[in-house]
Parts: sequence; structure tokens; C-alpha cells
Amino acid sequence: AEKAPAKAALCQACHGPAGAKPIMDVYPKLNGQNKAYLVTILKSYRSGERSGGQSAVMTAQAKMLTDEDIEALSSYYASQP
Amino acid sequence: AEKAPAKAALCQACHGPAGAKPIMDVYPKLNGQNKAYLVTILKSYRSGERSGGQSAVMTAQAKMLTDEDIEALSSYYASQP
Repeated sequence: AEKAPAKAALCQACHGPAGAKPIMDVYPKLNGQNKAYLVTILKSYRSGERSGGQSAVMTAQAKMLTDEDIEALSSYYASQP
Repeated sequence: AEKAPAKAALCQACHGPAGAKPIMDVYPKLNGQNKAYLVTILKSYRSGERSGGQSAVMTAQAKMLTDEDIEALSSYYASQP
């Protein structure tokens, strides 16, 4: 699996190592998820289009990410077992 | 893993067998996801609170589900390898 991008530390705080152990069970696991889904949803949070769930927190996080970050983080988590 | 609830056929149409093979890569895999996350998000779609992504389709699907359905489907998909 790929090395974690630096900004994965942001995600890890809630989704856990490799996104596999979220700190709360109402948060989603990210490991092995579809990359294109992660890209689409991160951009949806970043644009503020996504509501519901933890959208307030996720929108704040996603606004710190460039398109390159989103690509790197999505392929990192998609590649985690 | 548990037997699929009857209404899993609704989900399978887009998320694939055991939710592991979505028919489009912008749809999420459901297999092995946190049960409490699936319950929270299905209820969020059902109430119309969740926007972004495929919320239009998901809201229509979720409105066909009772609380018992949501529990059964969430634990089914969470238990899939």
C-alpha cells in the first residue's frame, strides 16, 4: 500500500490509522473504499454541497485540501487493506 | 456473514453483491463499513437531511425503509468481508 500523504494526519485523527479504525463507530471506515467515491465526496464537502452526518467538520477539513491533496489522500485510503 | 435481508436487492442494484462491487466507482463500497455509520447515514438520507453525491437517488431509496430495515441492512453490510 502507498505511504500516507502528510495531510493524512488530518483524516487519521477521526478515521484512525489507514482509515480503518474510526474513533467513533458513526464515522466511516475509509480503507479499501472506492477512490473515485472519496474524490467526489471530498470535493462535495469542500464546496459545501454535502450536508448531513458530520458535514460541518468534514467541510472544514476538506477546505484545507487542494485537488492534488484530494487525489493523493483518496488513492492512499483506497489502497489500504 | 449474515443472510441478505430481502430489501438488500434495492441496494445491490447499485452497490453490487454484498455491497462490495458498486456498478460505478463513484459509488461507495458498503462491505465491512461501520454499522452505526450506515444507520446514521441511511436515516439522514431518509429524512432528506443529506445532500451531495447521489443524495437524490439515496433519499428515494431510504424513504422505502423502516427502522427495522435500516438496522437489518446496516448489520448485513457491516458483516460482509
